[in-house]
Amino acid sequence: MKKFGFKLLATDKKCNARVGKVTTPHGTFETPVFMPVGTQGSVKAMLPRDLKEVGTEILLSNAYHLYIRPGLEVIKKIKGLHRFMGWNGPILTDSGGYQVFSLSKLRSITEEGVKFNSHFDGREIFLTPEKVIEIQEVLGSDIAMIFDECPAATKDKKTVEKAVNITLRWARRAKKHHKLKTQALFGILQGGTFKDLRKESLERTREIGFDGYALGGLSVGEPKEEMIEVLDEILPLMPEDKPRYLMGVGIPLDFFEAVERGADMFDCVNPTRYGRNGTAFTGDGLVVVRNGKYQKDPRPVQEDCGCYTCRNFSRAYLRHLVNSHEILGAQLITLHNVYFFVNLVKSMREKIREGRMDV
Amino acid sequence: MKKFGFKLLATDKKCNARVGKVTTPHGTFETPVFMPVGTQGSVKAMLPRDLKEVGTEILLSNAYHLYIRPGLEVIKKIKGLHRFMGWNGPILTDSGGYQVFSLSKLRSITEEGVKFNSHFDGREIFLTPEKVIEIQEVLGSDIAMIFDECPAATKDKKTVEKAVNITLRWARRAKKHHKLKTQALFGILQGGTFKDLRKESLERTREIGFDGYALGGLSVGEPKEEMIEVLDEILPLMPEDKPRYLMGVGIPLDFFEAVERGADMFDCVNPTRYGRNGTAFTGDGLVVVRNGKYQKDPRPVQEDCGCYTCRNFSRAYLRHLVNSHEILGAQLITLHNVYFFVNLVKSMREKIREGRMDV
Repeated sequence: MKKFGFKLLATDKKCNARVGKVTTPHGTFETPVFMPVGTQGSVKAMLPRDLKEVGTEILLSNAYHLYIRPGLEVIKKIKGLHRFMGWNGPILTDSGGYQVFSLSKLRSITEEGVKFNSHFDGREIFLTPEKVIEIQEVLGSDIAMIFDECPAATKDKKTVEKAVNITLRWARRAKKHHKLKTQALFGILQGGTFKDLRKESLERTREIGFDGYALGGLSVGEPKEEMIEVLDEILPLMPEDKPRYLMGVGIPLDFFEAVERGADMFDCVNPTRYGRNGTAFTGDGLVVVRNGKYQKDPRPVQEDCGCYTCRNFSRAYLRHLVNSHEILGAQLITLHNVYFFVNLVKSMREKIREGRMDV
Repeated sequence: MKKFGFKLLATDKKCNARVGKVTTPHGTFETPVFMPVGTQGSVKAMLPRDLKEVGTEILLSNAYHLYIRPGLEVIKKIKGLHRFMGWNGPILTDSGGYQVFSLSKLRSITEEGVKFNSHFDGREIFLTPEKVIEIQEVLGSDIAMIFDECPAATKDKKTVEKAVNITLRWARRAKKHHKLKTQALFGILQGGTFKDLRKESLERTREIGFDGYALGGLSVGEPKEEMIEVLDEILPLMPEDKPRYLMGVGIPLDFFEAVERGADMFDCVNPTRYGRNGTAFTGDGLVVVRNGKYQKDPRPVQEDCGCYTCRNFSRAYLRHLVNSHEILGAQLITLHNVYFFVNLVKSMREKIREGRMDV
């Protein structure tokens, strides 16, 4: 079984954009790459074979959600997350740091870990950096993430500094506890929009040494310009020979900004969430399918799109499905959106190779 | 463009079961056949390409629902129902007789037609036998059904007799009004569980002359034995050289009973409705996927099933999806159920050819 690896294949001389190749036990893929999100072990409204067909190369799932439900005993019995989900390609599991802080109200953070009440049934859960590693080892994902503290956007530097420091100590414990040789482990940088804290987080996380580095705690409520300033400052300082993962970002424009500055990996719930709400992403902006002006519109969502939805169905039909509360509406628009995100990011590889990324 | 046709290919000498071949402008298929139901122009939770993949040969949709929403102007603009739905195989459209009587509370039946309030927005609708033909001509389905009066199961012979007679008069008007040469038109027999009324309905409908004949008004609340008595009595009397369609029936056992007695075509919402509720049909009965005993069950829904769901997913995974309210649960179980119904009925053709249908 192949071990995890990353190789830099090309860089765009005019900016910091790069093409890389990631090797995992479940296959290889190039970067920049967009990972559709399957939080609960399902990319909402998409069959795994449709994910493959739209060009998906790696999925994201969530250790925290799967630990809560169905629980590790179930996934152990089915021999791991890949078998459970029916997806034999690479999987990255997020640790749940972000979810613990965004979904659960009652929590107490100690040096040891976080105590909180499950968003699902209210039962008390205690997660430590070690426990979160153990969960991901059972899941058997190709890439595991350390457990971090991810505060909401704030101007209070003390709060952010505290999060940076505890995340660093937890990162050390995670690294030490991680045993599964076929699984890569990524560190997560915190520091909000404070560049000095971001730099410190990067330097000290790098000292611990991980297979890849993620920028966490962005797109959590801060102004877009401040996120871009952080990308400008931190991405060029991140190790060249490891994947750089910008967590939870975002919309198509963000990908251009981030790839130009040297980011490699992305995930976001937008394509699936918007799909279920009847909104399609296109090269010309959003198409709110429910809109009355599409009532008799024979055109596909996007004229030049190669996805199954655009090859076969009119806006008029999709609007009818959404209005009639037919599940098929969510299925078809989600399929288009995931196709759009995956291929938009994929198409940047060619541009980078040809030195056209910042045009 | 091919016209509609029916050819009898084989009969089982030991019973009345028969294999036929139906030709339509959108392709041919053999009978017995099960038609998945796409009431509002969508077989709930299934992409058309998945319908094809599970072996679907003809779909059913509903003229009444599509007339109410999205309306004929929309479907006309998209050039017919096949294009609208992205399904280029045969389509049968039900007239809506059953729906008018089951979905709308305020209705008045006159010789001219039925006045009622739309189940969707309450607006007053007036449907006549001619109007229902015109709707189906715009939809461009391969097989249209006449507009019938379909009463609920009742012991009141007068009510049933009245329905038989008005359905006959409407059938004559429908036949006279129908112009679309590429579209077949089926008559519908009423008569509840009264055999003399059923026979009268058959004889007089046959005099009018249709491309096929349907048994309506069964599986509407009457005891199963009484339905079977009607099948015993009426199916052998129906024209041999035309398809025989048993409307809205039913569950797997019903298909065996009806095919043995000479029925050719079936439709029912059970596979999709049960699928969305997390219940799978199998050769060994229903599997209620949510059941706790499947929590760690690595087996597929049905061990020897060749469908995508059973080839790739465990009961444990499906249960997790249903419990987590993931749309994918409805998609995967629906896919299995439609595969099961379509292929169960399809498999009877071989049995009939080999004279093993009543074993």
